[in-house]
Amino acid sequence: MSSFTLRELAAHVGASVVGDGSRRLEGVRTLEEADERHLSFYHNRKYLAAARESRAGALVVADAALFPGRDLLVCKDPYAALGKILELLHPAPRPPSGVHPTAVVARSARVAGSASVGAHAVIGERAVVGERAVVGPACVLGDDAEVGEDAVLHPHVTVEARCRVGARCILHAGVVLGSDGFGFATVAGVHHKVPQVGIVVIEDDVELGANVCVDRAALGETRVGRGTKVDNLVQIAHNVRVGEHSLLVAQSGISGSTRLGHHVVMAGQSGAVGHISLGDGTVVTAKTGVTEDTPAGAMVSGFPSRPHKEWLRAMANLFTLEELKRRVKALEEAVRQLGGKA
Amino acid sequence: MSSFTLRELAAHVGASVVGDGSRRLEGVRTLEEADERHLSFYHNRKYLAAARESRAGALVVADAALFPGRDLLVCKDPYAALGKILELLHPAPRPPSGVHPTAVVARSARVAGSASVGAHAVIGERAVVGERAVVGPACVLGDDAEVGEDAVLHPHVTVEARCRVGARCILHAGVVLGSDGFGFATVAGVHHKVPQVGIVVIEDDVELGANVCVDRAALGETRVGRGTKVDNLVQIAHNVRVGEHSLLVAQSGISGSTRLGHHVVMAGQSGAVGHISLGDGTVVTAKTGVTEDTPAGAMVSGFPSRPHKEWLRAMANLFTLEELKRRVKALEEAVRQLGGKA
Amino acid sequence: MSSFTLRELAAHVGASVVGDGSRRLEGVRTLEEADERHLSFYHNRKYLAAARESRAGALVVADAALFPGRDLLVCKDPYAALGKILELLHPAPRPPSGVHPTAVVARSARVAGSASVGAHAVIGERAVVGERAVVGPACVLGDDAEVGEDAVLHPHVTVEARCRVGARCILHAGVVLGSDGFGFATVAGVHHKVPQVGIVVIEDDVELGANVCVDRAALGETRVGRGTKVDNLVQIAHNVRVGEHSLLVAQSGISGSTRLGHHVVMAGQSGAVGHISLGDGTVVTAKTGVTEDTPAGAMVSGFPSRPHKEWLRAMANLFTLEELKRRVKALEEAVRQLGGKA
Repeated sequence: MSSFTLRELAAHVGASVVGDGSRRLEGVRTLEEADERHLSFYHNRKYLAAARESRAGALVVADAALFPGRDLLVCKDPYAALGKILELLHPAPRPPSGVHPTAVVARSARVAGSASVGAHAVIGERAVVGERAVVGPACVLGDDAEVGEDAVLHPHVTVEARCRVGARCILHAGVVLGSDGFGFATVAGVHHKVPQVGIVVIEDDVELGANVCVDRAALGETRVGRGTKVDNLVQIAHNVRVGEHSLLVAQSGISGSTRLGHHVVMAGQSGAVGHISLGDGTVVTAKTGVTEDTPAGAMVSGFPSRPHKEWLRAMANLFTLEELKRRVKALEEAVRQLGGKA
Repeated sequence: MSSFTLRELAAHVGASVVGDGSRRLEGVRTLEEADERHLSFYHNRKYLAAARESRAGALVVADAALFPGRDLLVCKDPYAALGKILELLHPAPRPPSGVHPTAVVARSARVAGSASVGAHAVIGERAVVGERAVVGPACVLGDDAEVGEDAVLHPHVTVEARCRVGARCILHAGVVLGSDGFGFATVAGVHHKVPQVGIVVIEDDVELGANVCVDRAALGETRVGRGTKVDNLVQIAHNVRVGEHSLLVAQSGISGSTRLGHHVVMAGQSGAVGHISLGDGTVVTAKTGVTEDTPAGAMVSGFPSRPHKEWLRAMANLFTLEELKRRVKALEEAVRQLGGKA
Repeated sequence: MSSFTLRELAAHVGASVVGDGSRRLEGVRTLEEADERHLSFYHNRKYLAAARESRAGALVVADAALFPGRDLLVCKDPYAALGKILELLHPAPRPPSGVHPTAVVARSARVAGSASVGAHAVIGERAVVGERAVVGPACVLGDDAEVGEDAVLHPHVTVEARCRVGARCILHAGVVLGSDGFGFATVAGVHHKVPQVGIVVIEDDVELGANVCVDRAALGETRVGRGTKVDNLVQIAHNVRVGEHSLLVAQSGISGSTRLGHHVVMAGQSGAVGHISLGDGTVVTAKTGVTEDTPAGAMVSGFPSRPHKEWLRAMANLFTLEELKRRVKALEEAVRQLGGKA
């Protein structure tokens, strides 16, 4: 394992050093697990006591004053700095280039020489795998599927026919791209399948979590915009458009043809009905079901969805109804004593 | 690509033509993407402006009066007509019959000669694959599993031992049939597994979305009725019975031993507790958690669930509590001024 | 199929016999499907009529008085007894020991001679598979992954690099262990990946349902405690700690760094926000979103979460608001008649 001095790490991330810059560090550990050989970090107030008690050799922090006498790497955004340091100290292993002998690759497929195709992977006719891309063990790419440069597909990913994955995307295990959209025409009580002939396009720098599902469009495209990050078990229905740099947290779901602007956040277990538009920067809180268009910068909660502040007040009112009922009862008694008929 | 005249397409779906019946069309596109070579369709009022602005050569519509001067295919149900036309113009490619040399098929399995078994598929002892069925790449069928005629299993589908898939079913990638039901007997704080020895039966013409899970019964069967369509990431627990022609939308879940009648709709992210019955035609709205039996034709919302109209009124009342509180405060003031003690 | 007398079965589970102890039984069936050759069981009051009408040869029951004249196996906990009897009468078939010739096993991996590795499985460098463990068809174990003695991995399970599965664990099809946690540092609107360099540890005797996702820790471990049972489609985020003997029901989700004590229950479609602690024995009801720490033994509901009884009262009040509004209106009228200004 390579090691670096605190001073070297600080230079790497553009941070400053407080304390002993020559201290040598060989890895990053949690506050609890770190010892003098390790860097750790302080980011969330909940863990201030743990940070103070940590035996870590040095800490990445924003505010040096909280940790007198400690060796520190001080920067504005400790979490971002941590990311860069982890890349340096714990670089991700990359499988060797080349196609595993058990992989089944169609003759007409084009797999870059620098790409890695894992054991038992299956690659369809005319499919394309870009330079340095990794197609993990047991992945299946359909006919005419495309995987961009430097993309990484973990095991058991399915990219159905004609769907496209951009450069530098990361698809975790079990992701399904290009399953049919849920489209049926019901005639006399029988649901007839409407063929789903569109595709899925995942733009560059997108990450999709484990077992995420993105349906192909009925016609045209289902599209996830550049830089968007999607957590595990998220559902993206046919013809949805997700803008750039959005965040879809675990178990959220977006119904058909709904459009999300850029920098939208869907928190955990939230959803959106079909055929609506969420403006740029909309924040959908956890468990919310968005039922109508939102303006840019909106924060919405509840189901049906409301502006977040209205919802907070409604929730507070809901839990003070006992008191309101008591006040109404007291009023009724007072009115009766005044001779009124309540 | 084959092309058809508007007149030919109209005849195919039993629709009438307005405008130039000899116009030649070679595909179906979205309103935005279509040009004069393409058919598009108008189905949802939200897209009326888009339909009028579309450069499509012809439109499938219900009401010709909305589109004066356009070439139209007019029918009662444009969406159903679209389905039939898509089958004609964009027929789904079918993999060739035969067993891929890398598939592992048990000696005692019976795979129809017209069936297709993809690369790296695994088929267990005594399993049966019907005529023209497609078992996609990397699918796993357990011992004694059965897949009916013309069924299509996309990649990475698991059909555990003894489970049965009916004719013409479509199972999308990552579907799991026959995982153990969640059954444990807790003795002195330790959860002991109750063996799940039943099976899963998927009747004919069912579609199951990507990463759907259907647990095997503790005893007997978990059963999904003929013609039912299930969206992605849905959970169906042990001993559930889903009636015919039902629709289970993405991320909904049904707890153990609950029974759904026919034509039940579970909207997105809804759920039902265990051991209850949902009457025929019940509609469960999005995010609802059904907590008790429903009569036929019910529409229920909320958690605990209530008749939909009651729930709508309650939600409206919840967001007018501020006003109610103001009125109570005004009453208190008025009563005080009248000399009462409120 | 082997058969047993009622007396033998009673001895096996430490129960007593009422009626004919020499009656011979060859299997367990549901109340509806059983005939005189079968044992069935009565456990839930909803099914008393069905139990009385059942043609089962004998019933496992807690209260013999409910079934006069029947042959019975009487014990305190019929469900636990059923589990033991099922193990005896319906023993789970176990695949033969050995590595399937199509499996790809790294030279440096250590696979116990008594273990079973299925067709098309892939096992990485230095990975360990314990005695009698079963790695199902098409499973993928990353480099340095570990699977404990007697563990069973169903098809299509992914255990990413360095993650560990304890003894006697059962992982159903499609489980993903060790996908990256959802960790990004957002700088000027762009989400930069924070490398997730920790691992997942699944302790002994844990069961994970189909398509469950457990993310690896950012640093350190994500850990699921001994004896905990997890249902299908559950999400466990990075650095979560789940205590021993907990139950996580289908489609529930736990956000990053949250800690659950032992014997916690998360009901279906429930969730917990990140960085909180749920005390031992906490019960989270269905669809709830836990938003703050809970004390041991708490029962919480709603979102934001409240003590269950408060939530129940609030829900009841919500659905009587119509009446409260009528009472306020009547008061306003009465006050006006008294000459007040309401």
